[in-house]
Parts: sequence; C-alpha cells; structure tokens
Amino acid sequence: MHHRNRHLLQIEGMHPPQIDAMLDLAESYVLLNRSGKTQRDLLRGRTLINLFFEDSTRTRTSFELAGKRLGADVINMSVSTSSVNKGETLLDTAATLNAMNCDLLVVRHDQSGAPALLAQKVDAAVINAGDGTHEHPTQALLDALTIRRRKGRLQGLTIAICGDVLHSRVARSNIHLLTAMGSRVRVVGPPTLLPSNAERLGVDVFHDMKSGLDGADIVMMLRLQRERMNRSLIPSFREYFRFYGLDSEKFAYAKPDALVMHPGPMNRGVEIDSAVADHPERSVIKEQVEMGVAVRMAVLDILSRANHRND
Amino acid sequence: MHHRNRHLLQIEGMHPPQIDAMLDLAESYVLLNRSGKTQRDLLRGRTLINLFFEDSTRTRTSFELAGKRLGADVINMSVSTSSVNKGETLLDTAATLNAMNCDLLVVRHDQSGAPALLAQKVDAAVINAGDGTHEHPTQALLDALTIRRRKGRLQGLTIAICGDVLHSRVARSNIHLLTAMGSRVRVVGPPTLLPSNAERLGVDVFHDMKSGLDGADIVMMLRLQRERMNRSLIPSFREYFRFYGLDSEKFAYAKPDALVMHPGPMNRGVEIDSAVADHPERSVIKEQVEMGVAVRMAVLDILSRANHRND
Amino acid sequence: MHHRNRHLLQIEGMHPPQIDAMLDLAESYVLLNRSGKTQRDLLRGRTLINLFFEDSTRTRTSFELAGKRLGADVINMSVSTSSVNKGETLLDTAATLNAMNCDLLVVRHDQSGAPALLAQKVDAAVINAGDGTHEHPTQALLDALTIRRRKGRLQGLTIAICGDVLHSRVARSNIHLLTAMGSRVRVVGPPTLLPSNAERLGVDVFHDMKSGLDGADIVMMLRLQRERMNRSLIPSFREYFRFYGLDSEKFAYAKPDALVMHPGPMNRGVEIDSAVADHPERSVIKEQVEMGVAVRMAVLDILSRANHRND
Repeated sequence: MHHRNRHLLQIEGMHPPQIDAMLDLAESYVLLNRSGKTQRDLLRGRTLINLFFEDSTRTRTSFELAGKRLGADVINMSVSTSSVNKGETLLDTAATLNAMNCDLLVVRHDQSGAPALLAQKVDAAVINAGDGTHEHPTQALLDALTIRRRKGRLQGLTIAICGDVLHSRVARSNIHLLTAMGSRVRVVGPPTLLPSNAERLGVDVFHDMKSGLDGADIVMMLRLQRERMNRSLIPSFREYFRFYGLDSEKFAYAKPDALVMHPGPMNRGVEIDSAVADHPERSVIKEQVEMGVAVRMAVLDILSRANHRND
Repeated sequence: MHHRNRHLLQIEGMHPPQIDAMLDLAESYVLLNRSGKTQRDLLRGRTLINLFFEDSTRTRTSFELAGKRLGADVINMSVSTSSVNKGETLLDTAATLNAMNCDLLVVRHDQSGAPALLAQKVDAAVINAGDGTHEHPTQALLDALTIRRRKGRLQGLTIAICGDVLHSRVARSNIHLLTAMGSRVRVVGPPTLLPSNAERLGVDVFHDMKSGLDGADIVMMLRLQRERMNRSLIPSFREYFRFYGLDSEKFAYAKPDALVMHPGPMNRGVEIDSAVADHPERSVIKEQVEMGVAVRMAVLDILSRANHRND
Repeated sequence: MHHRNRHLLQIEGMHPPQIDAMLDLAESYVLLNRSGKTQRDLLRGRTLINLFFEDSTRTRTSFELAGKRLGADVINMSVSTSSVNKGETLLDTAATLNAMNCDLLVVRHDQSGAPALLAQKVDAAVINAGDGTHEHPTQALLDALTIRRRKGRLQGLTIAICGDVLHSRVARSNIHLLTAMGSRVRVVGPPTLLPSNAERLGVDVFHDMKSGLDGADIVMMLRLQRERMNRSLIPSFREYFRFYGLDSEKFAYAKPDALVMHPGPMNRGVEIDSAVADHPERSVIKEQVEMGVAVRMAVLDILSRANHRND
C-alpha cells in the first residue's frame, strides 16, 4: 500500500475513491453502533493513544469510543504545551510512545504540522485530530458522510462555509474534500476572517450572507473563537451575529431543502440562532456527532489493517 | 415497564418493593466482587459515560468500577461549569452524548434538577450521581444496603442524621428512603443547618446531640462543607466539633449496638472523631464504600435491562 | 511465599535471584509486546488502581498499558496533595480503595514512605511508582533489563550515575539493585547534589565527569529538577551543563562501547546534549521506555499470583 496511507494527516491530496471507501466503511459502522453491537476482535491487542496537546472533550471522547468499540486498549494523554522546549518535547514524546509499542496515535496539537512531524518519527499510524489552522480530516469525513446520507451524493452540490474560515482547520479540510468530490464551495464572512488565497483553493468568496447562501444546498457554520474579538478581527458578538449569525431569516436565502451543519460546540446567539440549530428537519448537527464515531471507527479500521505489525 | 424506571433520578417516589429488589440484586454483587469474579457479558457493548460537572474522585471511581466489572465501555468526562451559557451547554452536551449512542449516563451536577433535565433529552438511562442540594440516590441505596446487612431489616429503626442536613443531598435521599421503608428518622444539628420543612419530610428535629442520639440504632454523620463557615452558618470548626462532632462521649447516647456511618470523605476532628470513625465493631464506614460498588452494579444492571436498545 | 513479596516497595533488601526472576519474566513480555499479542486472561477480573499524588504522564501510562495488556480493569486516580490533613487523607484513601476490592495499587507520592504506609493498611498488592526521595523500584528494574540485554550481564560492570543523585529516587533504587547484582557504582556530580552517606551505600564518589566516567560501561544521567536552581544548589543551567552536562566530549571518557541512559523526560541542553541522547548505537533511552512496560507487566504478573484472592 502507498506510503501515504499509513497515516491520516490531511484531506489535501486524497483521491475520491479513497474518500468513498472510507465513507462506505463508516456507513457499516453507523448500523453497528445503532444496533448496540461491537466488533471487539478487530483491534484486540492494539494500543490507541489519544495524545491531546489541546483540550477537546468531544473529539477525544469520539475517538475513545471508536477505539473501545473495536476492542483497542485506549489510553488518554493530555499534555500541556505550556512547558518550555516544545519542539523537543514533541519528538521525545513521540519516541516514548513509539517505544511503548503504540499502534494508533491520535494527535491534536495547536501547531500546524505537528502530527506530520510525529508521523515521521513513529511506527504507529498517526491520525490528525486537528492541528493549528491546518486540517482536521476526520471532521471533514464525518461532515461528508452526513451530507451523503441526506443528499444521496457529494457531487454537484453548493456548499456555503460561513464565518471564521481563515483560522479554521475544519473549513480547510472540508474545502479540500468537497471540491475533490465535485461540489462547489463558497466561503462567506467578513474580509478579516476569510483566506486571501481563496481563488487558489478553488472556492468562491462572499462577504454577505444573502448572496453567499443564495441557492446553497448546505450551510456549514463555523465556531467563532472568542480570541478573535480580543484581536479586533470582529467588532462585537452582537454586531457579528447581526451580519453573519445564521438565523431563520438568513437561512431562508438557501434552498428550501438546505441543511445546516456545525462542528460544535456551538456559540448560540453568536454564529447561530437556536431556531436554526435545533430545526427538526433541516439541522443535522446531532447527526454529525453520530457520524463522527462511525467515521473514526472506519479510519482506525483501515489504518490498522495498513499497519499491522504482524504483516 | 413504567416510564419512571428508565432512569434513577431520585429516591422520592420510589416504592419499597423497588428498593428491596435493588438491594437484593446488590447483595449478589457483593458476593461476586468479593470472589474476584466479574460478569462481563451483562453490559458488553454498552457505553457508560461518567459526566461529572463537579469533581468527585470517589463516586466517579465507584461507578467506573461498577461499569467495567459488568463489561461496559466506560468513558469519563469532566466538564467545568465555569464556562458561560451553562444551561445551553448542558443540553448541547446531552445531545452530543445521545448522538454517540450512549446507553448509561451517570451525571453529577452542582445544580439541582440537572440530571432530570438531561433525562428528558437523551435516550440513555440517566443515573443521578448527586445534583445540587436535591438527591444522591445511589448513596441512600448503599447506606440502606449497609444497614440491612448489619441490622437485618430497614423497618422499625431509629436513625439520627447529624450535621448539615439543610444542604445535604445525601440526607434528603436517605430521609426519603428510610421513612419509605418504615424507619423513624431524626435530624440533628444547629438551627442554621436544618431544613425548615422537617415536619413535612416526616422527620423529628433535634438541636442537641444528647437527645437526638438517645436510643438511636444508626448515627449517620454528614460531611461539613468548608464553605459553610465562610458563609457564617457555623462559628468555627472547633466550636462545631464541641457541640456536634461525634466523639465517643456523644456516641454513647445511642443504643449500645448502634452503628456509625459517614458518606466520606471525612473531616476528622470536625464532624467526627477518629475513635468513633475507626471503631472496629460499630463503624461501618468502609463497608459503605464496598456496598457502593455493588449497589451501582445493581442499578446499572436493572436500568440496562429496562433500556435495552435491541428490545 | 515470604510476606515481603506481597508488595514491591523498594529494591533495598531484594536478593539477586528475585531480581533475576523478574527480569527473566519481563524478557518474555518484551517479545509479547513486540508481537502485538496480549495475555488478557492473566489479570481478567482484577482491578488495578493508578493512585498518583504526583503528576507523571509517562509512568502512569506505562502502568496503564501494562495492566490493560494483561486484561486488568485499570482505573486512574489523580489526587492533589494540596488539601489539608494529608496523612489522614492518605489512610482514608487507602481504606476506600481497599473497600472497592482493589487488587493492585500503583502509588506515586511526594512523601518518602507513603506507599509502605499504604501497604500496611490494604489487602491489595502495593507497587511503589516513586515516593519522595526514597525509591522508584520499577525504574531500576527496567534499567537493569536494558543493561542486561545489551551487555549480557549485570555483574562486573562499572556504572556512573551522574547529576542530582542526592534527591533522586531513581538513583537510590539503581544503586541498591546494581550493587546487589555485583556491579560497581559511581556517583558523579557537584558536592551539593551528592549524598553524604555515599560510602555507606557502597558507591564511589566523583566530583568531575572526566574521572567519574573514565572506564565506565554505563553512563546513567539523571533529570535535573528545575527547583534545584531556585534553591541555589546549582549556579545556572548553562554553568551546570558546562561542568556536568553529558556531551560527546565528556562521553568520550567512558569505554568505547559505553551506553548512555536517562529515565526521562530529558532536559536537553541541561543535563544531556542531543548528540549523545540521540546516538544511534550508544543511547538506549528509547529502549528503556519499552523495557518499562515489560517490567511492569512482569511485576503485576508476579504480585497478582502472590496475592490471588481465591487462593
């Protein structure tokens, strides 16, 4: 198998058949999870380490559940990056985990590229669970699975990603995946929060929600980080909500059967209004969480086959 | 099965046969635990999430052990309530866990009623592991099991609950359980720390230990929270101990075969003296901890049967 | 079996045959771990509690992995010692864990002797995972296993332990083990960081690296605790590195086939230079971590046989 497939570091560079294969396998795990069954033998005796340099209860829990349902031994390691000599600590940590015969290493780090650096140093399969402003590949895969199940396809859709696209690894991974699968992606937000290389990314840029959402099949809201306001990138939450927060009025610009998505946790009243977030037919936010566990099971499954120590 | 039985939110409203059935089942788990055996098949493939909005190493560990001994996948989630928008966060957290196909949700929260609110929103069976000043039902069940094993019955006993009854969810749950089972409950403490509706609760009120403990079969001491002193509800720990701390002299007012209980962790020298806490025959404080694991196994067992997704 | 063997509290007093037996068993676990297999039946139904009063992600993870690979239920408990009444809390914690039918209790504590105190109060087998400045026996065992695998023996070697020997439980355990096995131990460091009873310990004392490393088979570097500088025991990290930091020049004083060891985590540029730490043939620092998991599996295995509740 091609070297790149040993790890899951980014969506950029993945081909549609690879993505389709992951989503197909994830579908089967959705059914397994709903039935309350497990498949313990798959990762029995394998060690999965959740190495989180940034806090994220949700993502960590999702990977922990995925690993346990497949029978892996799951170890959680929360590491503060406040200590000195971060770079060295990262590589020494990698060497340590490697020496413990870790098979699957899930890494979240506040620096872009940290998981890729680790991947060069360890025998384990490395899964990027979010690195700086770079990528969050399992989030894009779970979003894609959610869309595919509801819309029946990932081709020919119009998807509006709204908010702080510039700093969002979720947005970057989704842009790569959705454009690769043949959908049209728009980014919508104030100029200070949109990337300057949007054209090179192959996306269309909008600065107002009305034109950005017009005719969209999917409206994907991003979480607004509080530190953006401190750094003066947005005037105030109230002001932000008025122009870019998704309420029923703005959502009406999208197609009548448009779906709303959010990676969570939501800032209700900042980037999204509860009437939209909790819409019984058109919000798929809870479904995204469910797909998250299934997608991570599929990723662990595929990577553990590619890295089996006994092969 | 009756809707109420899907969850364990409070003792209030439970009927003696329900309580007896739980204690009978818990008895069998005491024996299993002592033998070093487990019953892994019971919750195999089930997911138990320990969702603690308040720290409690003991109670969390007790539930974690109970779940693991029955074969469940156990996930610990410690959530700080210091973040804004608490109410929303709670419901979004509930939706998230629900989407992860959680089967059993153990919740501790500093606000009374939080577990009941969650129970309305999730498919999982919710177990209240202590909410504000409301209830702590598994603590009352483990106390009852400890008493029943030592005294042979829960009927016709005189039980003195001493200390900060007003703020104690342990006291409330015990009052409901013990009065329902036909025992007589007294509350003993300074007026500032006793509930004003004691008569409606069906308990007798005493402000001094001598008369409160006179003829008692069980003396149940409560943990004194340090913040009570800051809020001027008690003068000083030294003063408190002099009047309400259980030492050998005060314990002598109770029946010669009276037992002393404490939910832990103890403030030795504040609400209880070591000579009483460590009394080889009459202190059952360690036994309470052992009963805790067994009672929680019984609760998980019963609720998982009532909520089986495959039924 | 002799009473002392119920626990692993210290290396001092252990006999060479006991040490050899542990290392032999650990050898078999090295092979098991490398093969990706496990031996789940060994500790199935047994409860291992990691009770850490001091933070240590590495050591905790190593014990957690060891326990899980042998099939134990592993519970992590991090306890702050900042609360008052430490002594009492420790014993009450012990009583609590005992009542939960804990089989194996791994304890790290900042006070020397705390694990031994716990061992008197619980039925579980207690394993000292580092106590104050006393001992860290599994570290010495994993160091010994690393040396034995590389040098083929533990007899007749010259081992230089360098740095803050005075405050190091790692150094103390290693001194006891290596002298018991018939090797010659030297301690090397500034007078403020060496023990005053070095002769009673049966080691040779050196204050400069050149003579201390001359002819050494093994150079064992210790981690320099940052608080030593605050307490004026060393002038500055730069100064310390110049005289006692292990770089290629100083390492050249040792034998041509000498090995370098470090218990981790390393302060690169303080007590050790990267050129030495990462030396492909002569650094065995990563191997030490691997041996750590195997040694801990052997210890859990041996102690659980000695303490089997059903025996």
